[in-house]
Amino acid sequence: MQEREIKVMKKILATNDKMAIELRAILKEQGVLYINLMSSPGSGKTSLLENTAKNYDSNLAVIEGDIETTLDAKRIANAGMISYQINTGPFGGDCHLESGWIKSALEEIDLDGIDILFVENIGNLVCPAEFDVGAHFNIVLISTTEGEDKPLKYPLAFQNSSVCVITKTDLMPYLNLDIQQLKDNIKKVNPKMKIIELSSKTGDGMDNWFNFLNNNKLS
Amino acid sequence: MQEREIKVMKKILATNDKMAIELRAILKEQGVLYINLMSSPGSGKTSLLENTAKNYDSNLAVIEGDIETTLDAKRIANAGMISYQINTGPFGGDCHLESGWIKSALEEIDLDGIDILFVENIGNLVCPAEFDVGAHFNIVLISTTEGEDKPLKYPLAFQNSSVCVITKTDLMPYLNLDIQQLKDNIKKVNPKMKIIELSSKTGDGMDNWFNFLNNNKLS
Repeated sequence: MQEREIKVMKKILATNDKMAIELRAILKEQGVLYINLMSSPGSGKTSLLENTAKNYDSNLAVIEGDIETTLDAKRIANAGMISYQINTGPFGGDCHLESGWIKSALEEIDLDGIDILFVENIGNLVCPAEFDVGAHFNIVLISTTEGEDKPLKYPLAFQNSSVCVITKTDLMPYLNLDIQQLKDNIKKVNPKMKIIELSSKTGDGMDNWFNFLNNNKLS
Repeated sequence: MQEREIKVMKKILATNDKMAIELRAILKEQGVLYINLMSSPGSGKTSLLENTAKNYDSNLAVIEGDIETTLDAKRIANAGMISYQINTGPFGGDCHLESGWIKSALEEIDLDGIDILFVENIGNLVCPAEFDVGAHFNIVLISTTEGEDKPLKYPLAFQNSSVCVITKTDLMPYLNLDIQQLKDNIKKVNPKMKIIELSSKTGDGMDNWFNFLNNNKLS
């Protein structure tokens, strides 16, 4: 990588991280638990939020990050949550969200009475992990269909998260997945990771997810 | 995005694209079909290559792109293909492959007698599509578990590919997927896309994939 590119990258990261620290403090002061969901496309971030909206008694808001479309924001709104869409556009800076964009979004969202703010990051297991959006918890999702090796191959998303949600457990009978190996690989990359296994479709394991939210709500 | 960042990005892309054009011509002259596989993590790129190595009678070489680990290169080597690993490292420029890195890899690989060179790009549906690696075909994979909406949400990977392989069709009985909707969305983003449906696990549909390779081999 060229030196000039590195310098620019460092400057962007420094600006991002400063804003992230501010956001973390502001949301804490407001009593809003702030959670950043990261995963590959199709790992089930939106489905987890839909199930949560329907079955978890709390006031939720979601900031949706997508390169294009408002499909997820519509799904979230239909599920009864306040939703705000950030589209990062078709080219350049489109593979992740940054804290400054969250701050701008928050100027448009009324957080009064909101218990939990979720950010659904861009579907990408690489770039979002490089940008702190100031959340109280970074949570990485991985579906049972993605294989045991992903934590080793994409370690940063797992190192920079404190909770890993293994999704789509209902599909396990039809897969060759060695779930213990997957969990061992997660722990190898991040020994302190809390792991929650669930299926948003059948509801199996959702109680563990709701317990996690209960235990960490700020108000 | 800041103006300075855009300038650097444009310079990198121009260098990349120039090298990509050279690579495309060099491989054509050598009679080697050159295919770039792109998808999310866990969509089944390595499994498709493993099945191809076992069941398709041809001399194959694979350049594996991963942020970390040589797990895929080992799987590929075990399946009997020549494999070369590029690790992009843990931070910065790690979300895609560039044509210059392929060129460097090719200096280490003996292409004599090779019919097809595959690049297995970084598992990421966003960044790899922005960087032409000079392949004769960009092929995007999407698994049946990822949902119907991904072509609309990550259009560039679908616009910049000429073939879309829908993988893991064996899981369809256990999913709510509307495959016609998925195909409609692919065609909406890229009306000329050739679509191949298959399961690397059961072998269903692999004949269509092998036919595609047969029809496009250069020697």
